[in-house]
Amino acid sequence: MPGGLGPALPRCEFSLCFPERPVSMSDSSIFDHVRVVLARPSHPGNIGSAARAMKTMGFHRLYLVEPRRFPDSEATALASGAGDVLDAATVCSSLEDALAGCVFSAALTSRRRELAVPMRWVRSASAELAAYAGAGEVALVFGNETFGLSNDELALCHMPVMIPANPAYASLNLAAAVQLVCYELRVAMSEPGLPPAIEFPPASHHEVEGLVQHFEQALVGSGFLDPNKPRRLIPRLRRLFARARIEKEEVSFLRGALASLERKSD
Amino acid sequence: MPGGLGPALPRCEFSLCFPERPVSMSDSSIFDHVRVVLARPSHPGNIGSAARAMKTMGFHRLYLVEPRRFPDSEATALASGAGDVLDAATVCSSLEDALAGCVFSAALTSRRRELAVPMRWVRSASAELAAYAGAGEVALVFGNETFGLSNDELALCHMPVMIPANPAYASLNLAAAVQLVCYELRVAMSEPGLPPAIEFPPASHHEVEGLVQHFEQALVGSGFLDPNKPRRLIPRLRRLFARARIEKEEVSFLRGALASLERKSD
Repeated sequence: MPGGLGPALPRCEFSLCFPERPVSMSDSSIFDHVRVVLARPSHPGNIGSAARAMKTMGFHRLYLVEPRRFPDSEATALASGAGDVLDAATVCSSLEDALAGCVFSAALTSRRRELAVPMRWVRSASAELAAYAGAGEVALVFGNETFGLSNDELALCHMPVMIPANPAYASLNLAAAVQLVCYELRVAMSEPGLPPAIEFPPASHHEVEGLVQHFEQALVGSGFLDPNKPRRLIPRLRRLFARARIEKEEVSFLRGALASLERKSD
Repeated sequence: MPGGLGPALPRCEFSLCFPERPVSMSDSSIFDHVRVVLARPSHPGNIGSAARAMKTMGFHRLYLVEPRRFPDSEATALASGAGDVLDAATVCSSLEDALAGCVFSAALTSRRRELAVPMRWVRSASAELAAYAGAGEVALVFGNETFGLSNDELALCHMPVMIPANPAYASLNLAAAVQLVCYELRVAMSEPGLPPAIEFPPASHHEVEGLVQHFEQALVGSGFLDPNKPRRLIPRLRRLFARARIEKEEVSFLRGALASLERKSD
């Protein structure tokens, strides 16, 4: 029922140029801090089934990056009682936009990758996600049904996550994967007692990207990086910061350091 | 592609009159000891999606009790690469038949029941199921999409199991529930080290039902039970034996005791 959404399709409000959206812990539950991001989904039925899966586990913030068809009657039919999740979905033109404002993001992947930070099983990953959701917004990122996530998309996320599956047939349906990951995160968030506190505020996606771009600009300026032959330097920096779970203050410090180096080399 | 199954649709080979199928641990993996039983599924698409979900977690033994439509092209389409699971599915005319030969069965339910043995969450239930799968065949039983399992069907199973879900919207799709439960069982079966051994062989479903029927016959014979006003005696016996995880030797002992009492009251 596309009409139900009205002509003003909700669009992603974030971009890298916008300030980070402030997160208030007091007026929302930890479940409100979780985004489910579907990158380039092909089948609207899967979007609907994913919305239903999310809602059964208490999550409601759906982000769609370049969906092939949305809104769509098939999505609405398969959402069943989760039409409200579809109605409130945020459509973005890039994964960057969908991750803006997040302090932590997990990327579901079904195969090993080069240059990736260490893979985690979904159960142990969920414990960490639950902890970060107490500190800010987190994202669960799922790729296209056929192609998964690209290496560039994976590099934007902090943690590649795998679902243990039959090695001879690991082809989970997209909505089934959303169901499993949301279930694990719900269980992790419901564990008795608070998850271990994160002592220092983690940097947001926006802040880390700002740092990466600052590095790129500084290293091009210094002649260390040839923009025509960038090698793998920038992805390696992203990987380092992701593995380190870099903190806000560290980003500030490094940007200050970079700025001082740039001035020196002028 | 109903044609792919050929004219000889596989039928359940078990009935209460048949001897228990012997289980050999040496020639099969623990995953071969797990049946997924769908009781009266309405939508063939859900059968196909359930087959796919099972196979992604390494399970392949699908039992269908009175499916509304099977085989069916929609089931085949949604099974994706798990057509072999559908082809090998066993169609039964009753849940009794589907459970024949099992030493342990878990029934998925989304609501509290009267007279039921204590509910378990799927995670702790999976640890117990994994242990029983080392001792014999186990079943995961799922009800109809709309109505779930009847109280009579639930009473045939040893353990009612729930999936933790959003209290405001707990409506998991059937195949999504199969995916979650199979995932939890796969993880439980893959835990390091062997699950705690069960010291005494558990009674099979067939043996427990024999005992219950023996009791019924003896108590009707003794005048204690009026077959026209059976009260809730028989369901209560089943519940007791299920909660106790009654063992083979206990069944033999009780049946011997009953037989001796019957002779005395002749």
